[in-house]
Amino acid sequence: MWLIVGAPHAEDMITRRALLKSIGIAGGAGVMFESMQALGLTAPAIAAADYQAPARGGGHTKVVILGAGIAGLATAYELGKAGYNCTILEAKNRVGGRNWTVRGGTTETDLDGYKQTARFSEGQYLNAGPARLPQSHITLDYCRELGVEVQPFLNQNANALLYYDGKAPVRYRTAKADVYGYVSELLSKAIDQGALDKELTADDKEQLLTFLEDFGDIGGKADGFAYTGSSRRGYSVEPGAGDTPGVVLGPPPSLSEVIAARLGRTFTFEFEYDQAITMMQPVGGMDAIPMALYRAVGTHKVRLGAEVTRVTNHANGVEVAYRDATGERTISADYCVAALPPHIMARVPTNLGDAVTAALKTPTLTPVGKMGLEYKSRWWEAEDRIYGGITETDLDLTHVWYPSYGFHGKRGTIVGYYNTGANARTYGSLTPGQRVERALAQGAKIHGDRYRTELANAFSVAWHRTPYVEAGWVGWPSRTTGEYELLNQPQGRVYFAGDWLTYWIAWQNGAFDSARKVVTALHSRVQAGG
Amino acid sequence: MWLIVGAPHAEDMITRRALLKSIGIAGGAGVMFESMQALGLTAPAIAAADYQAPARGGGHTKVVILGAGIAGLATAYELGKAGYNCTILEAKNRVGGRNWTVRGGTTETDLDGYKQTARFSEGQYLNAGPARLPQSHITLDYCRELGVEVQPFLNQNANALLYYDGKAPVRYRTAKADVYGYVSELLSKAIDQGALDKELTADDKEQLLTFLEDFGDIGGKADGFAYTGSSRRGYSVEPGAGDTPGVVLGPPPSLSEVIAARLGRTFTFEFEYDQAITMMQPVGGMDAIPMALYRAVGTHKVRLGAEVTRVTNHANGVEVAYRDATGERTISADYCVAALPPHIMARVPTNLGDAVTAALKTPTLTPVGKMGLEYKSRWWEAEDRIYGGITETDLDLTHVWYPSYGFHGKRGTIVGYYNTGANARTYGSLTPGQRVERALAQGAKIHGDRYRTELANAFSVAWHRTPYVEAGWVGWPSRTTGEYELLNQPQGRVYFAGDWLTYWIAWQNGAFDSARKVVTALHSRVQAGG
Repeated sequence: MWLIVGAPHAEDMITRRALLKSIGIAGGAGVMFESMQALGLTAPAIAAADYQAPARGGGHTKVVILGAGIAGLATAYELGKAGYNCTILEAKNRVGGRNWTVRGGTTETDLDGYKQTARFSEGQYLNAGPARLPQSHITLDYCRELGVEVQPFLNQNANALLYYDGKAPVRYRTAKADVYGYVSELLSKAIDQGALDKELTADDKEQLLTFLEDFGDIGGKADGFAYTGSSRRGYSVEPGAGDTPGVVLGPPPSLSEVIAARLGRTFTFEFEYDQAITMMQPVGGMDAIPMALYRAVGTHKVRLGAEVTRVTNHANGVEVAYRDATGERTISADYCVAALPPHIMARVPTNLGDAVTAALKTPTLTPVGKMGLEYKSRWWEAEDRIYGGITETDLDLTHVWYPSYGFHGKRGTIVGYYNTGANARTYGSLTPGQRVERALAQGAKIHGDRYRTELANAFSVAWHRTPYVEAGWVGWPSRTTGEYELLNQPQGRVYFAGDWLTYWIAWQNGAFDSARKVVTALHSRVQAGG
Repeated sequence: MWLIVGAPHAEDMITRRALLKSIGIAGGAGVMFESMQALGLTAPAIAAADYQAPARGGGHTKVVILGAGIAGLATAYELGKAGYNCTILEAKNRVGGRNWTVRGGTTETDLDGYKQTARFSEGQYLNAGPARLPQSHITLDYCRELGVEVQPFLNQNANALLYYDGKAPVRYRTAKADVYGYVSELLSKAIDQGALDKELTADDKEQLLTFLEDFGDIGGKADGFAYTGSSRRGYSVEPGAGDTPGVVLGPPPSLSEVIAARLGRTFTFEFEYDQAITMMQPVGGMDAIPMALYRAVGTHKVRLGAEVTRVTNHANGVEVAYRDATGERTISADYCVAALPPHIMARVPTNLGDAVTAALKTPTLTPVGKMGLEYKSRWWEAEDRIYGGITETDLDLTHVWYPSYGFHGKRGTIVGYYNTGANARTYGSLTPGQRVERALAQGAKIHGDRYRTELANAFSVAWHRTPYVEAGWVGWPSRTTGEYELLNQPQGRVYFAGDWLTYWIAWQNGAFDSARKVVTALHSRVQAGG
């Protein structure tokens, strides 16, 4: 492999892509990927780099886009770079789709008729939909391009809590120290006893024992490799000045107690490709992204409150009927990009045929709920020393998120629940007031009475009960039974776009990438003569 | 333990301290710590909560404080709350001591006569000294109290790199996936073979195997628990729209290769009590803390450019001689707080006796170097998708830090080296220009030619060669041979303060806590009649 790469040190990453392309050409994709591995680097920027926005040639082509979510806005934005004449029809009275930031004054009425008006204070908000951006996602490239300022989203915190089985909450750092400690002890013992001699050379064993002693903060051979606690757990008395060395929190529970507590059940969340830190968020709320796209596209090109009622594909164009405050209207265009959720699009009458409608009905819908709880004080910072991050629970609220903005401010907004499936249905079936009661009753088990007494305001969303959305996200039972492929191809002059047509479902990254794919295909067709 | 705590769920944390105090009174400290452990919580706020600033009674007492570093400023700030009449003498022409933020225009001449003037662009800076604040540290309480805005410091990043043994850099996420994968495979095999039956019950084994399958992303028993790679490593082709499921980076190196590469050698950094995330930093530079203290103390109370030449302890007061631009001067006070580094204080003539001087000379000095490299573009974000965090190396630069501020901006400032001991001496012995050359030559091994070609400006500090500081920090060969205890007691009317008199050496937390200890002792004495 080094011969291919050509140097004992890592190549200049600026020329990495060029290098890999030349290897790809010379040796085929297999060799290319091996070389990349030799470079020790993933290549998350490649998708972004491979995309070429259309630069010209759209001036005479009219495109009607259904839905002003990220996919619809990005389609208009990218087509706009080549001068396409785009119009977006959006049923709601705002852009962004599921990218929705709730602030003081935000009003929403759900499909059950429950109307909420958020009373959050100035500067406080809830990102009701997407709330975090992985480093690798092209969403961040759009933030850079559009001038959307970003800041870290704290997706992981050693001081955040684990609350399971009704037992006292344990800090992540404490649970990790114990689990890693005992895992290291056990593996060291097995190695030392020769149980893994078939797997390991003498050198391997020595290196691994050295690693494990540090990894678990355990004793050496003379101490039986015992894990007996660690300052990694935290302190019961902080070290300080003078005669205050501190008292390490301990002793740790026994091996069996640690195993039985199953505190490691969410440890791997932070290892996941799309959840490992660094994660980012726009400053001031996630809707900075759709708002920037909206401005870049031209607000006059987006018709709000426009509900699509029919899509008709013709040999030389498309006709889209819609309803808005002024009544029934029609718009004609050369092409249509349908960037609605599939289950919403499935209800729009079209002449695209039953197979298309059936395909649109194929994805399964995921109920998702989220609640913002604004507090009169940031007690989690001042008293618990929790700056951002996520507390994991087996309660029906699932996760509690501490805010990654406004540190040390007067007020702060916690995500009181972020849940899916049955738990989301449970909360969604309640009135907004009942949801708050339930979330507070659950959260107070972890955080005590402050969780009630310090509350200032609350707002909840049940995405599966939200008009024109009706799901947090969707899933494909299979991507290889034809439906996914069908909708990833244009149907006449109608293209489909959305995160649901990608391998990044539930991420804005998917919506952007789908938009790019459609824009590329549509532009090629126009360039080729339509 | 639950009987003591009195409830099957966690107690309200607001009343936790009260609860623990009552338990402490009833059952002694041992029971108290056990109860805290039952609560599953460390109690990092307790040190902060236990401190009571003096509220009144200092009005007629004059205190001269030597050094306007954090310890000196905090002493004046806390004494000022009770009306003490404080004067700070600071040899440098700025406050902050090692808390020093270098910006465009900052000038420094070191003990070897090397003069540097930083040319950093507007908004770019290097925190030459402390740069990160753990959640548990009272430094954050001071930020809150003083209105110093804080933001996350990204101390850990899955996309940052590991560069060892001249081999190609590997992303942290990739190294972690492989190490955790093989560790899980090995331990699962040992458990399955019964090698740990003395340690584990059948239930333990089942639970642990379930955990390890997830922890390592490995196969089950039927697959021999094999680790064969994971999307946690990253992708060689990112998943995307349509027919682009992505290609996972792989296959992973063999078990022996992973062990031999020793990529896990710095994994435990992020487990440490004082390094585990969340970490914070002041917005705009760490010196926001001393500047806020300076304003709160009253700038007229700090005499800059005032080098102490003698300290004389009398029965009823102290006399401090110093030299400033106007010549030799003297100041008298009721008490003196010497908040200079011990090795600097050791050179100040006093009448405190040889034991004190010997004690001041006892700590060992740690050479520390740091370099800021301002770049014309943020290539690490745009091209490598590295947002903040630290790349670890076995080069003499040791660490490379990516900035935790100014994301997506035009320019950015990397910490090109942060090293100690022999490596710090190596760089410190070079001219500033030679240091840059050396750092670029080393860093380019990791980051390629961009590391040279994109450079805009550089500035370096060698703390061991910096006037009035002369070390990054100090260490005590032992804290139990008398010297540490001696200096933690007042010598006549002279008190000593600084991080070096605490168990938080090299952290501002230590300077603050030492100041609190001295303020508490001094105030008690004054209250008791002096």
